[in-house]
Amino acid sequence: MCKLHLEYIAACLENYEDTIIYKLLDRAQFKQNISAYSAMANDFKESKTVSLFDNRLRLQEEIDSKFGRFLDPAEKPFTKNLPPSQRQASHPSAYSFPKIDCRINFTYKIKHRYLKSIKILSKPGDDWHYGSSVELDVYALQAISRRVHFGAIYIAESKYQKKPDYYRNLILANDSDLIMSSLTRKDKEDEIITRVCKKLSTVQSLINTRVRNLISTDIIVHFYENIIIPITKEGEVSYLLKKKAQLLRHK
Amino acid sequence: MCKLHLEYIAACLENYEDTIIYKLLDRAQFKQNISAYSAMANDFKESKTVSLFDNRLRLQEEIDSKFGRFLDPAEKPFTKNLPPSQRQASHPSAYSFPKIDCRINFTYKIKHRYLKSIKILSKPGDDWHYGSSVELDVYALQAISRRVHFGAIYIAESKYQKKPDYYRNLILANDSDLIMSSLTRKDKEDEIITRVCKKLSTVQSLINTRVRNLISTDIIVHFYENIIIPITKEGEVSYLLKKKAQLLRHK
Repeated sequence: MCKLHLEYIAACLENYEDTIIYKLLDRAQFKQNISAYSAMANDFKESKTVSLFDNRLRLQEEIDSKFGRFLDPAEKPFTKNLPPSQRQASHPSAYSFPKIDCRINFTYKIKHRYLKSIKILSKPGDDWHYGSSVELDVYALQAISRRVHFGAIYIAESKYQKKPDYYRNLILANDSDLIMSSLTRKDKEDEIITRVCKKLSTVQSLINTRVRNLISTDIIVHFYENIIIPITKEGEVSYLLKKKAQLLRHK
Repeated sequence: MCKLHLEYIAACLENYEDTIIYKLLDRAQFKQNISAYSAMANDFKESKTVSLFDNRLRLQEEIDSKFGRFLDPAEKPFTKNLPPSQRQASHPSAYSFPKIDCRINFTYKIKHRYLKSIKILSKPGDDWHYGSSVELDVYALQAISRRVHFGAIYIAESKYQKKPDYYRNLILANDSDLIMSSLTRKDKEDEIITRVCKKLSTVQSLINTRVRNLISTDIIVHFYENIIIPITKEGEVSYLLKKKAQLLRHK
Protein backbone atom coordinates (compact mmCIF):
# COMPACT_ATOMS: atom_id res chain seq x y z
CA MET A 1 0.00 0.00 0.00
CA CYS A 2 1.29 3.46 -0.86
CA LYS A 3 2.31 5.22 2.35
CA LEU A 4 1.10 8.55 0.95
CA HIS A 5 -2.42 7.23 0.46
CA LEU A 6 -4.75 9.50 2.41
CA GLU A 7 -6.52 6.63 4.13
CA TYR A 8 -3.23 5.20 5.37
CA ILE A 9 -2.19 8.59 6.78
CA ALA A 10 -5.61 8.97 8.45
CA ALA A 11 -5.18 5.55 10.08
CA CYS A 12 -1.80 6.64 11.49
CA LEU A 13 -3.31 9.87 12.82
CA GLU A 14 -6.13 7.87 14.37
CA ASN A 15 -3.66 5.76 16.29
CA TYR A 16 -1.83 8.83 17.61
CA GLU A 17 -5.09 9.77 19.34
CA ASP A 18 -4.67 7.07 21.96
CA THR A 19 -1.41 8.46 23.35
CA ILE A 20 -2.82 12.00 23.33
CA ILE A 21 -5.92 10.93 25.26
CA TYR A 22 -3.88 8.95 27.81
CA LYS A 23 -1.34 11.66 28.43
CA LEU A 24 -4.00 14.34 28.89
CA LEU A 25 -5.88 12.06 31.25
CA ASP A 26 -2.66 11.42 33.20
CA ARG A 27 -1.94 15.16 33.47
CA ALA A 28 -5.52 15.77 34.65
CA GLN A 29 -4.79 13.69 37.75
CA PHE A 30 -2.77 16.63 39.06
CA LYS A 31 -3.90 20.17 39.80
CA GLN A 32 -2.98 23.12 37.61
CA ASN A 33 0.19 23.79 39.65
CA ILE A 34 0.79 27.10 37.91
CA SER A 35 4.07 27.76 39.73
CA ALA A 36 5.64 25.01 37.62
CA TYR A 37 5.24 27.27 34.55
CA SER A 38 6.71 30.41 36.04
CA ALA A 39 10.42 31.27 35.88
CA MET A 40 9.92 33.43 38.99
CA ALA A 41 8.64 30.49 41.05
CA ASN A 42 11.15 27.96 39.70
CA ASP A 43 12.86 25.91 42.39
CA PHE A 44 15.11 23.95 39.98
CA LYS A 45 18.71 24.68 40.95
CA GLU A 46 20.28 23.80 37.58
CA SER A 47 18.65 26.63 35.71
CA LYS A 48 16.56 29.28 37.37
CA THR A 49 16.13 31.55 34.36
CA VAL A 50 13.24 29.53 32.92
CA SER A 51 10.33 27.65 34.50
CA LEU A 52 10.47 24.09 35.82
CA PHE A 53 8.37 23.09 32.80
CA ASP A 54 10.84 24.64 30.34
CA ASN A 55 13.73 22.94 32.12
CA ARG A 56 12.01 19.57 31.77
CA LEU A 57 11.16 20.18 28.11
CA ARG A 58 14.76 21.11 27.24
CA LEU A 59 16.35 18.22 29.15
CA GLN A 60 13.92 15.68 27.65
CA GLU A 61 14.51 16.99 24.13
CA GLU A 62 18.28 16.91 24.62
CA ILE A 63 18.07 13.16 25.27
CA ASP A 64 15.57 12.58 22.47
CA SER A 65 17.78 14.49 20.06
CA LYS A 66 20.84 12.38 20.99
CA PHE A 67 18.79 9.28 20.20
CA GLY A 68 17.82 10.61 16.79
CA ARG A 69 14.19 11.61 17.32
CA PHE A 70 14.47 14.74 15.19
CA LEU A 71 15.85 12.87 12.19
CA ASP A 72 12.23 11.84 11.62
CA PRO A 73 10.58 14.55 9.47
CA ALA A 74 7.40 14.47 11.59
CA GLU A 75 9.26 15.15 14.86
CA LYS A 76 9.94 18.82 15.49
CA PRO A 77 11.79 20.13 18.56
CA PHE A 78 10.25 22.70 20.89
CA THR A 79 13.66 23.97 21.99
CA LYS A 80 16.61 25.40 20.03
CA ASN A 81 20.29 24.46 19.96
CA LEU A 82 19.82 20.79 20.78
CA PRO A 83 22.78 18.40 20.63
CA PRO A 84 23.04 16.37 17.40
CA SER A 85 22.10 12.71 17.17
CA GLN A 86 24.70 10.47 18.78
CA ARG A 87 23.63 7.52 16.67
CA GLN A 88 25.86 6.54 13.84
CA ALA A 89 24.35 6.66 10.35
CA SER A 90 20.81 5.31 10.76
CA HIS A 91 19.65 2.50 8.56
CA PRO A 92 17.56 3.89 5.67
CA SER A 93 14.78 1.39 6.45
CA ALA A 94 14.27 3.06 9.84
CA TYR A 95 12.03 5.60 8.11
CA SER A 96 8.58 4.31 7.33
CA PHE A 97 7.67 7.31 5.21
CA PRO A 98 9.21 8.91 2.15
CA LYS A 99 11.86 11.48 3.06
CA ILE A 100 10.19 14.83 2.64
CA ASP A 101 11.67 18.30 2.81
CA CYS A 102 9.59 20.00 5.48
CA ARG A 103 10.85 23.08 7.20
CA ILE A 104 7.58 23.80 8.98
CA ASN A 105 7.64 23.94 12.79
CA PHE A 106 4.51 24.81 14.74
CA THR A 107 5.81 23.85 18.16
CA TYR A 108 5.72 27.43 19.47
CA LYS A 109 2.01 27.72 18.77
CA ILE A 110 1.25 24.21 20.08
CA LYS A 111 3.10 24.89 23.33
CA HIS A 112 1.48 28.30 23.81
CA ARG A 113 -2.06 26.97 23.34
CA TYR A 114 -1.38 23.82 25.38
CA LEU A 115 -0.10 25.79 28.37
CA LYS A 116 -3.14 28.07 28.23
CA SER A 117 -5.36 24.95 28.19
CA ILE A 118 -4.00 23.49 31.43
CA LYS A 119 -6.59 25.58 33.27
CA ILE A 120 -9.29 23.67 31.35
CA LEU A 121 -7.61 20.26 31.73
CA SER A 122 -6.73 20.30 35.44
CA LYS A 123 -8.45 21.38 38.61
CA PRO A 124 -7.44 24.78 39.99
CA GLY A 125 -4.90 24.95 42.77
CA ASP A 126 -1.70 23.35 43.82
CA ASP A 127 -0.90 19.80 44.91
CA TRP A 128 2.91 20.29 44.77
CA HIS A 129 3.32 17.46 42.25
CA TYR A 130 5.26 19.78 39.97
CA GLY A 131 7.75 17.14 38.79
CA SER A 132 5.04 14.73 37.66
CA SER A 133 2.95 17.52 36.13
CA VAL A 134 5.73 18.83 33.88
CA GLU A 135 6.89 15.32 32.97
CA LEU A 136 3.39 14.51 31.72
CA ASP A 137 3.07 17.88 29.99
CA VAL A 138 6.18 17.10 27.97
CA TYR A 139 4.87 13.66 26.93
CA ALA A 140 1.44 15.12 26.04
CA LEU A 141 3.05 17.93 24.04
CA GLN A 142 5.28 15.50 22.15
CA ALA A 143 2.26 13.34 21.27
CA ILE A 144 0.23 16.36 20.12
CA SER A 145 3.15 17.81 18.15
CA ARG A 146 3.84 14.52 16.39
CA ARG A 147 0.17 14.23 15.40
CA VAL A 148 0.07 17.83 14.15
CA HIS A 149 3.29 17.72 12.12
CA PHE A 150 2.74 14.22 10.75
CA GLY A 151 -0.75 15.28 9.65
CA ALA A 152 0.37 18.62 8.22
CA ILE A 153 3.22 17.17 6.16
CA TYR A 154 1.74 13.95 4.86
CA ILE A 155 -1.89 15.03 4.35
CA ALA A 156 -0.71 18.09 2.43
CA GLU A 157 1.79 16.13 0.35
CA SER A 158 -0.78 13.44 -0.39
CA LYS A 159 -3.40 15.99 -1.50
CA TYR A 160 -0.80 17.83 -3.58
CA GLN A 161 0.23 14.65 -5.38
CA LYS A 162 -3.43 13.91 -6.16
CA LYS A 163 -4.10 17.31 -7.78
CA PRO A 164 -0.69 18.86 -8.55
CA ASP A 165 -1.91 21.35 -11.16
CA TYR A 166 -4.69 22.64 -8.96
CA TYR A 167 -2.42 23.21 -5.96
CA ARG A 168 0.47 24.55 -8.08
CA ASN A 169 -1.72 27.45 -9.21
CA LEU A 170 -2.90 28.22 -5.68
CA ILE A 171 0.66 28.07 -4.35
CA LEU A 172 2.03 30.35 -7.06
CA ALA A 173 -0.81 32.78 -6.36
CA ASN A 174 -0.03 32.62 -2.62
CA ASP A 175 -3.73 31.96 -2.09
CA SER A 176 -3.60 30.62 1.43
CA ASP A 177 -7.35 31.14 1.97
CA LEU A 178 -8.31 28.97 -0.97
CA ILE A 179 -5.68 26.37 -0.03
CA MET A 180 -7.13 26.30 3.49
CA SER A 181 -10.70 25.88 2.29
CA SER A 182 -9.69 23.20 -0.23
CA LEU A 183 -7.99 21.26 2.59
CA THR A 184 -10.93 21.56 4.99
CA ARG A 185 -13.30 18.62 5.24
CA LYS A 186 -15.81 19.43 7.98
CA ASP A 187 -17.29 15.91 7.83
CA LYS A 188 -13.84 14.38 8.53
CA GLU A 189 -13.26 16.76 11.42
CA ASP A 190 -16.61 15.81 12.95
CA GLU A 191 -15.70 12.15 12.54
CA ILE A 192 -12.45 12.70 14.46
CA ILE A 193 -14.23 14.54 17.27
CA THR A 194 -16.86 11.80 17.58
CA ARG A 195 -14.18 9.10 17.62
CA VAL A 196 -11.95 10.72 20.26
CA CYS A 197 -14.98 11.26 22.51
CA LYS A 198 -15.89 7.59 22.16
CA LYS A 199 -12.30 6.56 22.87
CA LEU A 200 -12.15 8.73 25.99
CA SER A 201 -15.41 7.22 27.28
CA THR A 202 -14.16 3.68 26.64
CA VAL A 203 -10.80 4.34 28.28
CA GLN A 204 -12.48 5.96 31.29
CA SER A 205 -14.88 3.03 31.66
CA LEU A 206 -11.82 0.96 32.67
CA ILE A 207 -10.69 3.34 35.39
CA ASN A 208 -11.13 2.76 39.09
CA THR A 209 -12.60 6.13 40.01
CA ARG A 210 -11.82 5.64 43.67
CA VAL A 211 -8.29 6.88 43.08
CA ARG A 212 -8.50 8.58 39.72
CA ASN A 213 -10.24 11.66 38.26
CA LEU A 214 -12.34 11.43 35.14
CA ILE A 215 -12.35 14.24 32.58
CA SER A 216 -15.30 15.37 30.50
CA THR A 217 -15.32 14.78 26.74
CA ASP A 218 -15.57 18.60 26.35
CA ILE A 219 -11.92 18.76 27.37
CA ILE A 220 -10.76 16.43 24.61
CA VAL A 221 -13.01 18.30 22.17
CA HIS A 222 -11.33 21.54 23.27
CA PHE A 223 -7.84 20.15 22.56
CA TYR A 224 -8.89 18.86 19.13
CA GLU A 225 -10.92 21.91 18.10
CA ASN A 226 -8.56 24.58 19.38
CA ILE A 227 -5.14 23.04 19.06
CA ILE A 228 -4.79 19.83 17.08
CA ILE A 229 -7.12 20.26 14.10
CA PRO A 230 -6.57 24.00 13.38
CA ILE A 231 -2.77 23.87 13.78
CA THR A 232 -2.58 20.77 11.56
CA LYS A 233 -4.46 22.68 8.86
CA GLU A 234 -2.26 25.77 9.25
CA GLY A 235 0.69 23.42 8.96
CA GLU A 236 -0.70 21.94 5.73
CA VAL A 237 -1.08 25.40 4.20
CA SER A 238 2.39 26.41 5.33
CA TYR A 239 3.86 23.15 4.00
CA LEU A 240 2.30 23.74 0.57
CA LEU A 241 3.30 27.43 0.37
CA LYS A 242 6.90 26.43 1.01
CA LYS A 243 6.83 24.62 -2.31
CA LYS A 244 6.66 27.99 -4.11
CA ALA A 245 10.39 28.59 -4.48
CA GLN A 246 10.84 25.11 -5.90
CA LEU A 247 7.90 25.51 -8.29
CA LEU A 248 9.31 28.83 -9.53
CA ARG A 249 12.68 27.20 -10.24
CA HIS A 250 11.01 24.54 -12.38
CA LYS A 251 8.65 26.87 -14.19
CA MET B 1 -9.86 7.19 53.86
CA CYS B 2 -6.68 5.71 55.27
CA LYS B 3 -4.06 5.55 52.54
CA LEU B 4 -2.73 2.28 53.93
CA HIS B 5 -6.11 0.59 53.57
CA LEU B 6 -5.60 -2.50 51.40
CA GLU B 7 -8.49 -1.66 49.10
CA TYR B 8 -7.11 1.80 48.43
CA ILE B 9 -3.68 0.38 47.59
CA ALA B 10 -5.29 -2.21 45.29
CA ALA B 11 -7.16 0.58 43.48
CA CYS B 12 -3.86 2.42 42.91
CA LEU B 13 -2.23 -0.76 41.59
CA GLU B 14 -5.22 -1.30 39.32
CA ASN B 15 -4.73 2.12 37.76
CA TYR B 16 -1.03 1.46 37.14
CA GLU B 17 -2.14 -1.40 34.86
CA ASP B 18 -3.27 1.00 32.14
CA THR B 19 0.16 2.53 31.60
CA ILE B 20 1.81 -0.91 31.65
CA ILE B 21 -0.60 -2.26 29.02
CA TYR B 22 -0.18 0.81 26.79
CA LYS B 23 3.58 0.87 26.96
CA LEU B 24 3.88 -2.85 26.21
CA LEU B 25 1.48 -2.44 23.31
CA ASP B 26 3.53 0.50 22.02
CA ARG B 27 6.77 -1.49 22.25
CA ALA B 28 5.13 -4.41 20.39
CA GLN B 29 4.73 -2.17 17.35
CA PHE B 30 8.47 -2.58 16.78
CA LYS B 31 10.44 -5.74 16.13
CA GLN B 32 12.75 -7.29 18.71
CA ASN B 33 15.73 -5.25 17.47
CA ILE B 34 18.17 -7.25 19.59
CA SER B 35 21.18 -5.14 18.54
CA ALA B 36 19.77 -2.33 20.69
CA TYR B 37 20.50 -4.44 23.79
CA SER B 38 24.07 -5.36 22.94
CA ALA B 39 27.09 -3.27 23.94
CA MET B 40 28.96 -4.83 21.00
CA ALA B 41 26.42 -3.57 18.48
CA ASN B 42 25.96 -0.15 20.06
CA ASP B 43 26.13 2.75 17.62
CA PHE B 44 25.69 5.49 20.25
CA LYS B 45 28.77 7.70 20.14
CA GLU B 46 28.45 9.15 23.65
CA SER B 47 29.09 5.85 25.39
CA LYS B 48 29.98 2.69 23.57
CA THR B 49 30.73 0.55 26.62
CA VAL B 50 27.06 -0.30 27.23
CA SER B 51 24.12 -1.00 24.93
CA LEU B 52 21.89 1.65 23.35
CA PHE B 53 19.17 0.53 25.76
CA ASP B 54 21.41 1.05 28.82
CA ASN B 55 22.42 4.47 27.53
CA ARG B 56 18.78 5.48 27.21
CA LEU B 57 17.90 4.11 30.65
CA ARG B 58 20.75 6.02 32.33
CA LEU B 59 20.09 9.31 30.54
CA GLN B 60 16.36 9.15 31.26
CA GLU B 61 16.95 8.36 34.93
CA GLU B 62 19.46 11.20 35.23
CA ILE B 63 16.74 13.65 34.21
CA ASP B 64 14.11 11.99 36.35
CA SER B 65 16.44 12.07 39.34
CA LYS B 66 17.10 15.80 38.88
CA PHE B 67 13.33 16.37 38.93
CA GLY B 68 12.96 14.44 42.18
CA ARG B 69 11.42 11.17 41.00
CA PHE B 70 13.43 9.04 43.42
CA LEU B 71 12.37 11.05 46.45
CA ASP B 72 9.13 9.08 46.17
CA PRO B 73 9.57 5.84 48.17
CA ALA B 74 7.87 3.76 45.43
CA GLU B 75 10.26 4.95 42.70
CA LYS B 76 13.51 3.00 42.56
CA PRO B 77 16.30 3.73 40.07
CA PHE B 78 17.65 1.07 37.72
CA THR B 79 21.03 2.79 37.48
CA LYS B 80 23.59 3.78 40.13
CA ASN B 81 25.31 7.10 40.87
CA LEU B 82 22.51 9.32 39.65
CA PRO B 83 22.68 13.09 40.18
CA PRO B 84 20.70 14.35 43.20
CA SER B 85 17.37 16.15 42.90
CA GLN B 86 17.78 19.71 41.68
CA ARG B 87 14.49 20.75 43.23
CA GLN B 88 14.64 22.80 46.37
CA ALA B 89 12.99 21.32 49.45
CA SER B 90 9.81 19.69 48.20
CA HIS B 91 6.55 20.54 49.84
CA PRO B 92 5.59 17.82 52.34
CA SER B 93 2.12 17.54 50.77
CA ALA B 94 3.70 16.36 47.52
CA TYR B 95 3.72 12.86 48.97
CA SER B 96 0.37 11.16 48.90
CA PHE B 97 1.53 8.26 51.04
CA PRO B 98 3.09 8.03 54.47
CA LYS B 99 6.87 8.27 54.36
CA ILE B 100 8.13 4.74 54.75
CA ASP B 101 11.65 3.47 55.20
CA CYS B 102 12.07 1.03 52.36
CA ARG B 103 15.46 0.00 51.18
CA ILE B 104 14.23 -2.71 48.84
CA ASN B 105 15.16 -2.40 45.17
CA PHE B 106 14.14 -5.09 42.70
CA THR B 107 15.00 -3.19 39.55
CA TYR B 108 17.82 -5.56 38.57
CA LYS B 109 15.45 -8.53 38.52
CA ILE B 110 12.67 -6.57 36.76
CA LYS B 111 15.05 -5.41 34.05
CA HIS B 112 16.56 -8.85 33.55
CA ARG B 113 13.17 -10.55 33.14
CA TYR B 114 11.76 -7.73 31.03
CA LEU B 115 14.65 -7.87 28.55
CA LYS B 116 14.28 -11.64 28.27
CA SER B 117 10.55 -11.13 27.56
CA ILE B 118 11.06 -8.86 24.56
CA LYS B 119 11.26 -12.00 22.43
CA ILE B 120 7.70 -12.81 23.56
CA LEU B 121 6.40 -9.26 23.22
CA SER B 122 7.78 -8.30 19.81
CA LYS B 123 8.10 -9.99 16.45
CA PRO B 124 11.52 -11.44 15.62
CA GLY B 125 13.88 -9.46 13.45
CA ASP B 126 15.03 -5.94 12.96
CA ASP B 127 13.20 -2.85 11.75
CA TRP B 128 16.04 -0.44 12.71
CA HIS B 129 13.72 1.57 14.99
CA TYR B 130 16.20 1.19 17.84
CA GLY B 131 15.68 4.68 19.26
CA SER B 132 11.90 4.26 19.57
CA SER B 133 12.25 0.69 20.88
CA VAL B 134 14.55 1.61 23.78
CA GLU B 135 12.58 4.76 24.57
CA LEU B 136 9.43 2.66 24.99
CA ASP B 137 11.32 -0.03 26.93
CA VAL B 138 12.37 2.58 29.47
CA TYR B 139 8.80 3.88 29.89
CA ALA B 140 7.43 0.32 30.18
CA LEU B 141 10.11 -0.62 32.72
CA GLN B 142 9.42 2.49 34.81
CA ALA B 143 5.69 1.69 34.83
CA ILE B 144 6.32 -1.95 35.81
CA SER B 145 8.87 -1.00 38.46
CA ARG B 146 6.58 1.59 40.02
CA ARG B 147 3.76 -0.97 40.18
CA VAL B 148 6.04 -3.62 41.73
CA HIS B 149 7.66 -1.39 44.36
CA PHE B 150 4.46 0.47 45.25
CA GLY B 151 2.72 -2.87 45.69
CA ALA B 152 5.58 -4.46 47.62
CA ILE B 153 5.98 -1.60 50.09
CA TYR B 154 2.40 -0.60 50.75
CA ILE B 155 0.70 -3.99 50.61
CA ALA B 156 3.30 -5.42 52.98
CA GLU B 157 3.08 -2.46 55.37
CA SER B 158 -0.71 -2.56 55.29
CA LYS B 159 -0.81 -6.30 56.06
CA TYR B 160 1.80 -5.86 58.79
CA GLN B 161 -0.19 -3.11 60.47
CA LYS B 162 -3.28 -5.31 60.42
CA LYS B 163 -1.61 -8.28 62.14
CA PRO B 164 1.59 -6.94 63.73
CA ASP B 165 2.07 -9.76 66.26
CA TYR B 166 1.64 -12.46 63.66
CA TYR B 167 4.16 -10.92 61.25
CA ARG B 168 6.59 -9.94 64.03
CA ASN B 169 7.02 -13.59 64.94
CA LEU B 170 7.54 -14.66 61.33
CA ILE B 171 10.05 -11.85 60.76
CA LEU B 172 12.04 -12.65 63.90
CA ALA B 173 12.09 -16.33 62.84
CA ASN B 174 13.25 -15.29 59.33
CA ASP B 175 10.46 -17.48 58.00
CA SER B 176 10.30 -16.16 54.46
CA ASP B 177 8.31 -19.17 53.21
CA LEU B 178 5.50 -18.66 55.69
CA ILE B 179 5.53 -14.89 55.09
CA MET B 180 5.26 -15.56 51.35
CA SER B 181 2.37 -17.99 51.74
CA SER B 182 0.56 -15.67 54.17
CA LEU B 183 0.84 -12.84 51.60
CA THR B 184 -0.38 -14.96 48.68
CA ARG B 185 -4.03 -14.64 47.69
CA LYS B 186 -4.51 -16.78 44.57
CA ASP B 187 -8.07 -15.47 44.10
CA LYS B 188 -6.78 -11.87 43.99
CA GLU B 189 -4.06 -12.80 41.52
CA ASP B 190 -6.63 -14.44 39.24
CA GLU B 191 -8.78 -11.33 39.51
CA ILE B 192 -5.84 -9.16 38.36
CA ILE B 193 -5.10 -11.46 35.41
CA THR B 194 -8.76 -11.46 34.31
CA ARG B 195 -8.94 -7.68 34.59
CA VAL B 196 -5.75 -6.92 32.63
CA CYS B 197 -6.88 -9.29 29.85
CA LYS B 198 -10.21 -7.49 29.68
CA LYS B 199 -8.46 -4.11 29.63
CA LEU B 200 -6.14 -5.20 26.83
CA SER B 201 -9.11 -6.41 24.76
CA THR B 202 -10.99 -3.15 25.31
CA VAL B 203 -7.97 -1.03 24.47
CA GLN B 204 -7.28 -3.08 21.35
CA SER B 205 -10.90 -2.79 20.22
CA LEU B 206 -10.19 0.94 19.67
CA ILE B 207 -7.15 0.37 17.47
CA ASN B 208 -7.12 0.80 13.72
CA THR B 209 -5.42 -2.50 12.84
CA ARG B 210 -4.50 -1.26 9.40
CA VAL B 211 -1.42 0.40 10.82
CA ARG B 212 -1.00 -1.21 14.19
CA ASN B 213 -0.21 -4.69 15.55
CA LEU B 214 -2.41 -6.35 18.12
CA ILE B 215 -0.90 -8.51 20.87
CA SER B 216 -2.44 -11.60 22.39
CA THR B 217 -3.67 -11.57 25.98
CA ASP B 218 -1.14 -14.37 26.66
CA ILE B 219 1.59 -11.76 26.45
CA ILE B 220 0.07 -9.56 29.15
CA VAL B 221 -0.55 -12.69 31.24
CA HIS B 222 3.14 -13.59 30.80
CA PHE B 223 4.27 -10.17 32.09
CA TYR B 224 1.93 -10.37 35.09
CA GLU B 225 2.60 -14.01 35.97
CA ASN B 226 6.35 -13.99 35.45
CA ILE B 227 7.42 -10.49 36.32
CA ILE B 228 4.90 -8.23 38.03
CA ILE B 229 3.08 -10.49 40.49
CA PRO B 230 6.00 -12.70 41.64
CA ILE B 231 8.47 -9.82 42.04
CA THR B 232 5.89 -7.77 43.95
CA LYS B 233 5.49 -10.69 46.37
CA GLU B 234 9.25 -11.15 46.72
CA GLY B 235 9.43 -7.43 47.39
CA GLU B 236 6.77 -7.74 50.12
CA VAL B 237 8.73 -10.51 51.84
CA SER B 238 11.97 -8.57 51.55
CA TYR B 239 10.30 -5.41 52.87
CA LEU B 240 8.98 -7.26 55.92
CA LEU B 241 12.26 -9.07 56.65
CA LYS B 242 14.05 -5.72 56.69
CA LYS B 243 12.00 -4.83 59.76
CA LYS B 244 13.95 -7.42 61.74
CA ALA B 245 16.77 -5.15 62.95
CA GLN B 246 14.24 -2.57 64.10
CA LEU B 247 12.12 -5.20 65.87
CA LEU B 248 15.21 -6.56 67.66
CA ARG B 249 16.09 -3.07 68.90
CA HIS B 250 12.62 -2.66 70.40
CA LYS B 251 12.38 -6.13 71.86
